[in-house]
Amino acid sequence: MKINLERLEKNLKELSQFGRNEDGGIDRSLGSEAEEEARSWLLEKALDMGAAIKIDAMANIWINWKTTNCDNKPITLGSHHDAVPDGGMYDGALGVLIGLEIMQTLKENRVPLKHPLQVVSFTAEEPNPFNISTMGSRGVTGKLTLEQLQASRHLLTGESLTAALKRAGGNIQGLLKAQLGKDDMAAFLECHIEQGRNLYDNQLSAGTVSKITGIYRELITVKGEANHGGTTLMNHRHDAFLAAAQAALAVEETAKALNRRDVVATVGWLEVNPNSANIISGNTKFIMEFRFPVELVKQQMLQNIEKEFFVIENIRGISFHREIILDQAPAPMDEGIMKIIGEEISKEQAPLSTAAEESSGLEFIDHVPVLVSMAGHDAVHMSGITKTGMIFVQSIEGKSHCREEKTNSKDIEIAGNALLNAVLRLDKELKHENLN
Amino acid sequence: MKINLERLEKNLKELSQFGRNEDGGIDRSLGSEAEEEARSWLLEKALDMGAAIKIDAMANIWINWKTTNCDNKPITLGSHHDAVPDGGMYDGALGVLIGLEIMQTLKENRVPLKHPLQVVSFTAEEPNPFNISTMGSRGVTGKLTLEQLQASRHLLTGESLTAALKRAGGNIQGLLKAQLGKDDMAAFLECHIEQGRNLYDNQLSAGTVSKITGIYRELITVKGEANHGGTTLMNHRHDAFLAAAQAALAVEETAKALNRRDVVATVGWLEVNPNSANIISGNTKFIMEFRFPVELVKQQMLQNIEKEFFVIENIRGISFHREIILDQAPAPMDEGIMKIIGEEISKEQAPLSTAAEESSGLEFIDHVPVLVSMAGHDAVHMSGITKTGMIFVQSIEGKSHCREEKTNSKDIEIAGNALLNAVLRLDKELKHENLN
Repeated sequence: MKINLERLEKNLKELSQFGRNEDGGIDRSLGSEAEEEARSWLLEKALDMGAAIKIDAMANIWINWKTTNCDNKPITLGSHHDAVPDGGMYDGALGVLIGLEIMQTLKENRVPLKHPLQVVSFTAEEPNPFNISTMGSRGVTGKLTLEQLQASRHLLTGESLTAALKRAGGNIQGLLKAQLGKDDMAAFLECHIEQGRNLYDNQLSAGTVSKITGIYRELITVKGEANHGGTTLMNHRHDAFLAAAQAALAVEETAKALNRRDVVATVGWLEVNPNSANIISGNTKFIMEFRFPVELVKQQMLQNIEKEFFVIENIRGISFHREIILDQAPAPMDEGIMKIIGEEISKEQAPLSTAAEESSGLEFIDHVPVLVSMAGHDAVHMSGITKTGMIFVQSIEGKSHCREEKTNSKDIEIAGNALLNAVLRLDKELKHENLN
Repeated sequence: MKINLERLEKNLKELSQFGRNEDGGIDRSLGSEAEEEARSWLLEKALDMGAAIKIDAMANIWINWKTTNCDNKPITLGSHHDAVPDGGMYDGALGVLIGLEIMQTLKENRVPLKHPLQVVSFTAEEPNPFNISTMGSRGVTGKLTLEQLQASRHLLTGESLTAALKRAGGNIQGLLKAQLGKDDMAAFLECHIEQGRNLYDNQLSAGTVSKITGIYRELITVKGEANHGGTTLMNHRHDAFLAAAQAALAVEETAKALNRRDVVATVGWLEVNPNSANIISGNTKFIMEFRFPVELVKQQMLQNIEKEFFVIENIRGISFHREIILDQAPAPMDEGIMKIIGEEISKEQAPLSTAAEESSGLEFIDHVPVLVSMAGHDAVHMSGITKTGMIFVQSIEGKSHCREEKTNSKDIEIAGNALLNAVLRLDKELKHENLN
């Protein structure tokens, strides 16, 4: 039994038309017409398949198919249908449509599953104008409050999130009722493009994911002394921007020194005040972000940063004021599912030579790469309520969040069939108690 | 004969009420109600004195008083009445009001001058919402085009500069006619707070100015590669912001290495794109500013910067795109006037000890400090059309462009009397041809 690659790629192409802009990118964030059109298209596809549909409080779309009458909890496949501005056609969409394709393949082959099969397309996974990412998965796993959701408005149109979710079929008042518990699902599997270059650089189609990176962010305010850029001697200055520049380079060095593929640090946002060519900055803010596989590494990085910041404060006569704005622990994937996905990939994908495996810098099980996801996913939140696993597919040159995003047919086929077989394995191997 | 300090300080206080904000700073930029009120107040003062008033195309205010009927060209005193946002009460205002005070003192003492005396208050000297600084003095010295002026609009209100100047009594169409030639004035003298700490650190009241700093600015665009801040390995990055950070530190180091009181370098404006916490910047722009006493020093700095930028480009795989946006040569003051101002200060101001002079790092003539102005002034542009000199007065802690700006009465008195006597000396010593 194989998935129908042609049908899957046709679906990918159809879905990619919603929000396609003049430059070839896709604009499809929550609140947009394109996002609504994508939803309608998905619902139509599901109805055509004869599947049952549920839209929850967060406007997440749940597509259900049940072959037998046993009381087992569903195995769920899915990802999200929204896109970053000017984004690509695989991020999110591939995970939803590969789920639908697996459902359709199993249905056509009349495979009697012991677990109901479910495909989910989450609402607003990407950074979006309502400023709450992984919105749908966080909402149904109890990580967002009603107040937080009700306070959010579209940055450009001013529409309330309440209204936007309602238009999408959701109902914010039902948030508490919609929340998923530990006995609502047997397993959650998400297929996603890698977004990094590990698979691409090693000419591999797919890999299994061991964990999703921890993300830690601080908003750092540097307080110096604003002064005239002409009349203030060089050694009388307390330049907040230059201190921030030095700090950002120290942040980079801290990550580089660890020399690990699963550790990065970024300063991508910075604001100089007053931001005038001839005024020494008295106040500069920036966001420092770490991504790390285990808490201990984060601690190590913070210790190093503290030392560096202390030196900068003393040399420049400025001060750093630090505020933690995100501290998301690494999310380990379920070991059993990680292993099953790996084994099923190994049956589809040609192994690398031993030398190539060694020089790749990656970890392997059964010649299948075991990857740490350096991007966040809905799977982070789902892992809190059910056994969760991810399969990564190669994205050419590791591109993502851009219109150039591209995944080869061969790689989609390998990942799709591996995931199909992983579902069959899980259907057999998952315990049949109510609590799986 | 002495100036009337009490009257001068009363005037300073009165003028400072226009635009005074809740925090005690002064908001008085061209286009504001406060600026118009300050103009009306100045005109009333001049009329009370019985002086003649002219408002030129650029809305510069010219106040004239003539004691004899000879055909000599006027000696002009002045500065500007506008202020930076949240600015102080001395920058600009002191130069205009000390001019008026000298005029009034000479008038009260019925001193028969061979030159008409003139006080000017220039329009929009400071950085302002029409984005053209030293606007009035540049306009009447032929450094602005009609097109440039007509294209400018207030950043916040959108009012055209044409309309704002008209409201202030100007008439942009008369720009060409208003331009000053080399035979329109005998001399221009500007009194201004120092804005640096040279006088303050050495407990001196006043100094004479030898030249006004050259200012050189480049808008530099760093082109790197925007990428996902989570999934892009540290050594696959081409981070435009980090390259800019390194460049800014190199700019600082270039100025510091010269270790001169008359050389500074500043990066006060920077813009990160796309400026998102988890996206590596693909494009960052910043403005690099040098201030320098002679062209050679600028060349030295540029050579060093080029070397440093080359290294950064190669290490980071980014590129710097440089555009010169200002290249204003240093403006030397007239040597004769510089000397006269210095001599007159030396009669009012107690000299430092020889040891103190030596350790100050300053240059002295007749025990009077000879300073390089590290800020631009209307005098830069006036020096192109007439013999020009400046007297600097101590500003406590060197503060300027802030509400804490403060100058002691004693220092105002010493500078005022020195300038009064310099005017009397110039009136005698300037040659009596039409071309002075």
